[in-house]
Amino acid sequence: MINVELNDFIRDVPDFPIEGILYKDITPLLKNSAAFSLALEYLIAKVSDTKFDLIAAPESRGFIFGVPIADRLKLPFVPIRKPGKLPYDTTSFEYELEYGTDTVEMHVDATRKGDRVLVVDDLLATGGTVDACCKLIQNTGAVVAGCVFLIELEFLEGRSLLGDIPVESIIQY
Amino acid sequence: MINVELNDFIRDVPDFPIEGILYKDITPLLKNSAAFSLALEYLIAKVSDTKFDLIAAPESRGFIFGVPIADRLKLPFVPIRKPGKLPYDTTSFEYELEYGTDTVEMHVDATRKGDRVLVVDDLLATGGTVDACCKLIQNTGAVVAGCVFLIELEFLEGRSLLGDIPVESIIQY
Repeated sequence: MINVELNDFIRDVPDFPIEGILYKDITPLLKNSAAFSLALEYLIAKVSDTKFDLIAAPESRGFIFGVPIADRLKLPFVPIRKPGKLPYDTTSFEYELEYGTDTVEMHVDATRKGDRVLVVDDLLATGGTVDACCKLIQNTGAVVAGCVFLIELEFLEGRSLLGDIPVESIIQY
Repeated sequence: MINVELNDFIRDVPDFPIEGILYKDITPLLKNSAAFSLALEYLIAKVSDTKFDLIAAPESRGFIFGVPIADRLKLPFVPIRKPGKLPYDTTSFEYELEYGTDTVEMHVDATRKGDRVLVVDDLLATGGTVDACCKLIQNTGAVVAGCVFLIELEFLEGRSLLGDIPVESIIQY
């Protein structure tokens, strides 16, 4: 029932970014403030039993969900960015793509040993990016308390990459 | 007084992204939830006399302020993105940089004739990007009701580029 309601605000766009991919477009959800508010409520409810003291999210779409959740819960927010975007000293983690590699970065003072971090993103697909974010956070001595996504593409089995980290999602395909 | 308080959470990073630039780093503000909440309150207060029915913001840092303001005010949010990021049919606006050009994009159905749009971003510098965002929105027949920024680098005179559009900011340098 939850899924059917929010589903109405996720638009399928065929052949984006490349032929054969059916892209899940979240912009209709962002355009409907009641639906977006409900999505945030559901995301927060999914992690109500999880103990965490800060929120981290990768740019750019992760910010769209991570920041208002941090605002609603009155928790600190840590942006995880592509290389060269963060101005202060950074720590980075490189990960494999189908062709080549990519890197995620975070400020060195963004998380500390023992911090419990919730990672938020819009979509769990193959899990490569979120796995890199988790390892980036763990390398600072912080704990990834969980990951929560609006959408999970279950057939790509992204959560298997995340090992023991608790993974939650609202809409599954 | 307002400025002095929030100022404490803006970190100066010298020589970023290039030598001679003193970069205003907002990540300490994001790490302090009380200060971030206050910043959002101030931003909303700055436009309390402005009539608008949706919020637009350019990626990525614009999302950090635009989305929680939309969430707090229960208004639709429209992401403005770099080329090739939005999956559905887009409208775009190309603008001049010091060397070369850049482009901003929005979905064609993001705004409609007569919509009153508030544009939110973290920083007003030379104003090139926000001016392009405003023209992108105006080209759809929508009205830019105002622009609001956390930080304004007054010596760059970005607001002069925006003509008659009301411009507000919280912290001025």
